[in-house]
Amino acid sequence: MTITITAFESSPDRGRGLARDMRVRWALEEVGQPYEVRLVSFKAMKQPTHLALQPFGQIPTYEEGDLALFESGGIVLHIAEHHPGLLPEDANARARAITWMFAALSTVEPPIVEREAAHYAERDEAWHEARQPILKGRIRDRLDQLSDRLGDADWLDGAFSAADLLMVTVLRRLEGSDILGDYPTLSAYIARGQARPAYKRAFDAQLAVFTATQK
Amino acid sequence: MTITITAFESSPDRGRGLARDMRVRWALEEVGQPYEVRLVSFKAMKQPTHLALQPFGQIPTYEEGDLALFESGGIVLHIAEHHPGLLPEDANARARAITWMFAALSTVEPPIVEREAAHYAERDEAWHEARQPILKGRIRDRLDQLSDRLGDADWLDGAFSAADLLMVTVLRRLEGSDILGDYPTLSAYIARGQARPAYKRAFDAQLAVFTATQK
Repeated sequence: MTITITAFESSPDRGRGLARDMRVRWALEEVGQPYEVRLVSFKAMKQPTHLALQPFGQIPTYEEGDLALFESGGIVLHIAEHHPGLLPEDANARARAITWMFAALSTVEPPIVEREAAHYAERDEAWHEARQPILKGRIRDRLDQLSDRLGDADWLDGAFSAADLLMVTVLRRLEGSDILGDYPTLSAYIARGQARPAYKRAFDAQLAVFTATQK
Repeated sequence: MTITITAFESSPDRGRGLARDMRVRWALEEVGQPYEVRLVSFKAMKQPTHLALQPFGQIPTYEEGDLALFESGGIVLHIAEHHPGLLPEDANARARAITWMFAALSTVEPPIVEREAAHYAERDEAWHEARQPILKGRIRDRLDQLSDRLGDADWLDGAFSAADLLMVTVLRRLEGSDILGDYPTLSAYIARGQARPAYKRAFDAQLAVFTATQK
């Protein structure tokens, strides 16, 4: 059955691979599954047709035969459960990898997204500069803990898994900030993820969408 | 094998069932699994023994024989995968329920937690009052979409599942705010969750911890 995902018609990250379709593209590349992409405009994302697939008016979505999913974490886990390569076979190791998937999206990502949201919605407010230490402090708390845990391991828990895929995409949102430079352990971890051939294929595919719209 | 979870020795919510051990207790009650609770102080949560179990210094954790998990979403999914009652048997419906689990924790919960975090960290700042419309607006955007999707259904997607369990606990964090009153659909949804016998047993168990510490 053909797998179809949705992505931004015009990604606000200008092809830097920070939109959440990147996670799904990367997962599909890791397991060697071909997929088609339907591009969605910001206007179309808020219309009933797309909201029926994605109740919060976002991308990506995932369609495969009768199945329709939304939410990048749920989609990546679905892919990982149905194809070898993204979750350990040992039951306990598998449960730990899934727990790290939730940690990436529920514990590490929210303070990172919050800083972005403040930039978009409040950068012209009088308090924006004064709030930066608060916003960065919350992110640093998480990165300190994550860096301590990772130590000199290559991946979060044994072999590369869907948890690393999500965590790397979460941490990449800090690229260009003055925060990541203080975490060489995490920078090296991100680089290991980016060096994977499947990552590169996924990155190139999303960049090609952006490049095509610039012609 | 004995299941042992951790919970706050002294819960900041004063037994209102808003701490994240409530999710795990409720899930275990739904599937009829007994469990033991180890209470952890705020100081002990930041010590190496607990950080080995929970890298971010939080509760709950879950131990069962050789398996140790953290992150309430990962724990609830583990319970749901190993005992009937919290996920549909149909493969597609099961994948959709898991996607809604991620939606509860990654899309709906973050703006709710952000408002709480602003209350704790910034309530004495000059800008706190001026930021309220921004904080509430983000929450309302999500609640509008969730309420539209739920419509007159009892649960998010067919029968009650682990997704509803998580979503109800996420929405309950708004209790006492002036927001939830505008969403009768979601208030009724929360009430359906709270009416479940397993919810009540879990709630009473966590309240008993708080009551015991007040003697």
